[in-house]
Amino acid sequence: MGAETLKKPALHFSARLPAPSRFGRSALLIHDRAISRHVPGFRRWARSFPASYAVDGGESLKSLDAFPGHMSRILSLADRLGARDLTIVVAGGGSVGDFGGFVASILKRGVKLVQIPSTWLSAIDSAHGGKTALNVGGMKNQIGTFYAAGEVHLVRELLEGQGEARVRDAMGELAKIALLEGGARWKRFAREPASGTKLLWRWLPPAIEAKYRVVARDPFERSGIRQILNLGHTLGHVLEAHYGLSHGEAVAQGLLFAVEWSRKKGTLAAAGYRESAALLYGKCAFRCRAGELRPLLRTRFLQLARGDKKRTSADRVTFIFLAGPGKPAPREVTLSEFANEARAQGWLGKARG
Amino acid sequence: MGAETLKKPALHFSARLPAPSRFGRSALLIHDRAISRHVPGFRRWARSFPASYAVDGGESLKSLDAFPGHMSRILSLADRLGARDLTIVVAGGGSVGDFGGFVASILKRGVKLVQIPSTWLSAIDSAHGGKTALNVGGMKNQIGTFYAAGEVHLVRELLEGQGEARVRDAMGELAKIALLEGGARWKRFAREPASGTKLLWRWLPPAIEAKYRVVARDPFERSGIRQILNLGHTLGHVLEAHYGLSHGEAVAQGLLFAVEWSRKKGTLAAAGYRESAALLYGKCAFRCRAGELRPLLRTRFLQLARGDKKRTSADRVTFIFLAGPGKPAPREVTLSEFANEARAQGWLGKARG
Repeated sequence: MGAETLKKPALHFSARLPAPSRFGRSALLIHDRAISRHVPGFRRWARSFPASYAVDGGESLKSLDAFPGHMSRILSLADRLGARDLTIVVAGGGSVGDFGGFVASILKRGVKLVQIPSTWLSAIDSAHGGKTALNVGGMKNQIGTFYAAGEVHLVRELLEGQGEARVRDAMGELAKIALLEGGARWKRFAREPASGTKLLWRWLPPAIEAKYRVVARDPFERSGIRQILNLGHTLGHVLEAHYGLSHGEAVAQGLLFAVEWSRKKGTLAAAGYRESAALLYGKCAFRCRAGELRPLLRTRFLQLARGDKKRTSADRVTFIFLAGPGKPAPREVTLSEFANEARAQGWLGKARG
Repeated sequence: MGAETLKKPALHFSARLPAPSRFGRSALLIHDRAISRHVPGFRRWARSFPASYAVDGGESLKSLDAFPGHMSRILSLADRLGARDLTIVVAGGGSVGDFGGFVASILKRGVKLVQIPSTWLSAIDSAHGGKTALNVGGMKNQIGTFYAAGEVHLVRELLEGQGEARVRDAMGELAKIALLEGGARWKRFAREPASGTKLLWRWLPPAIEAKYRVVARDPFERSGIRQILNLGHTLGHVLEAHYGLSHGEAVAQGLLFAVEWSRKKGTLAAAGYRESAALLYGKCAFRCRAGELRPLLRTRFLQLARGDKKRTSADRVTFIFLAGPGKPAPREVTLSEFANEARAQGWLGKARG
C-alpha cells in the first residue's frame, strides 16, 4: 500500500467566493452548473477561471461508463493551460466533489485540489477526509482514491444560496458528530437557540474539526477507527437506496435506529439514552418514519444490507452502537440480527418479513 | 496533495513462480494471457488462484475507453472473493503492470498489490517505483496514480521464458542505471564477461536498488530529482512514438544522443565521455541508428517532443545531460535547441528540417 498520511487541508471560512486569481494561472474549475441558478454572481465568478468545466451533479456524474468522455474533455482543457502546476478547483455538492476529487487524484498522477462545497451536506462531511469515488454498474463508490485537498473553502454565500430547505440534509451528519463527540461543547449545541442556516454555519467549524480528528487516526480505513463515522449509516444506506430518501434524512433515521438498538442491547444506559434521544428528537427534531413508509421485504433488506461495503464478510457487518454521547461502540453483528432489529423497529414487513 | 511517502516493496528473487497460496484466499490474479505460451506450467499456476483475469498486454490494454468494461468484470470477480483484504497480483510486462497497478490503486480505494514482472524491461524498471497509468485518447500515461506494490517478485523462469531476443529491450534501462550510478560497481559491470539473460539476472538486484534510491528521494516527482531517471528518454519517447521502436531500443538511441550532446555542450569532459561511450558502444553493443532510419520532419519532431509530459512549459523541456558516469545534470532547453541537436545528430531531415 502506498501512502502513509493524508495531509489536512487548509480550511478557509469566508462570506464570499474566493477570488479565482488566488488559484493561479493553471486553475481549472469543475462546477455544478446548477449553482448559478441559486447564487448571483456565480456564473461570472466561474468565467473568471483560466478554464472551467460544467457538470450536472448527481449520481450519474459518478458513473464509470461516462468517465472516459469527461476525462478526455477535462484533459483537453488542462493541456491548454500547460501540464505543470495544474490546480483543480471543485465547486459543487457531494457527487461533484467525489468526481472532481477523483479526477484531480489521477490526472497526470495527481494535481493540486481545492474543494468548495456548495451544499451543507458536503460542507460538513464529504468535502473533508480525502475520499473520492466513482460508481461501477450502479454500485456506489466501488472505485476511488484517498486524496486530500490542499484547501477547502467554506463559503457562506454559496451555502446559504441553497435556501433553508436543504438545511435538513446536513442535520443528520451534524447530529452524528454531536453523538460521536459528546462532551460539554456538544451539550451546548443541544441547548443552542439558533436554528437553520445560522445554526449550521456556527457549528460547521467544530463539526469539521471533529471529523478531521477521526480521519487523522485512521486516514486509509485500515485500523477500523474511521468506521465510527459510519454511525447511523448502516441502516441509512439501505433506506437511501430503497426509498430514495435524501442522505441526510436517511442518516437521521439511521441515528434514531442506532440509539434505540443501543438501548435495547444494553450498551447505552438510561442517562446516555436520554441525552442522545433528547438531542435527536429535541434539538434536531427528528422523528422516526418507520410507520409512514411501506415496509421492506426481508429479502430486499438483506440484499441492500449486503451491498454495504462496511460488511466484514458476506453475512456480517460492523454496526456502530453507542455507549453514550462521545462513546461509539463498533460491534460485529450478523445481517440476520440486523434485519431482526429493523423488523422490531418497524422497517420490515411483519407478514412476509 | 495526499501521500507523503511511497513505501518500498519487499523484493523477492526466486527461480520459480511463488505459490499462489502465499497471497491468501482473496487473491485476484491479473495476467497477460501470452505468458502461458512461453512458460510451461504458467497456466496451471494461474488456475490455482482464487480468481484470475486474463488480458492481452500492449498499449490498447491501457486505453481509458476500454477501462469501464475491464473494471466491471474485475469487480465482479473481486466481489465473489469478499471485499476485504483483497490482493491484486499482476503478472505481465509494462502495460499489464501499469494497468493492474492502476486497478489495485482505485479498487475500493486501494487494495494490496503484488507485481510479478514477466519481461526483463518491466523487471528492471516499470514494476518498481509505484507509477501506474492509463492512456487517454491515444496519449500515453495521461492518468494514473503513485501506488507502491507491497511485494515485487523477480522470477527467473518467467523472465527467461521470453528467450534471449527480449534481452535487448532491457539493456537500455540497465545502461541508463549504469550511467546514472557510475562508481566502481558499474565499472565492474562494463568489464563483466557474462551476457544476455545471465548478465541481466546478475545485475537486476543492484539496478533495482539504484532505482529505489532515486525514487525514495522524490517519490511523487515534485522536487525534480526523480527526473534523472528520464536520462535517454527525451529523444527515446520521440523515436518510440514515430518509428515504433521498442522502448529499450529507443532508450538506447536516446542514451547515445544524450552522451554525444553532453560532450558537445561541454558538461561531459573527455575522460567521462570515453567511459560513458565505452559502456554504451562496447558493453551494451549499442550503435546509432540515425543514419538507417528515414529522418523526421522538424514539425513532426516538435509535435512529438511537445507531447512529452516532462516539458516544463509549452516550449521548454528538462533534458538530462551527463557530467560523467554517476553525475546526471538536468538542464532546461528549448524545444528548438533540442530539435537542432537532433538534426545535428542525423535524426531530422536536412532539406526540410
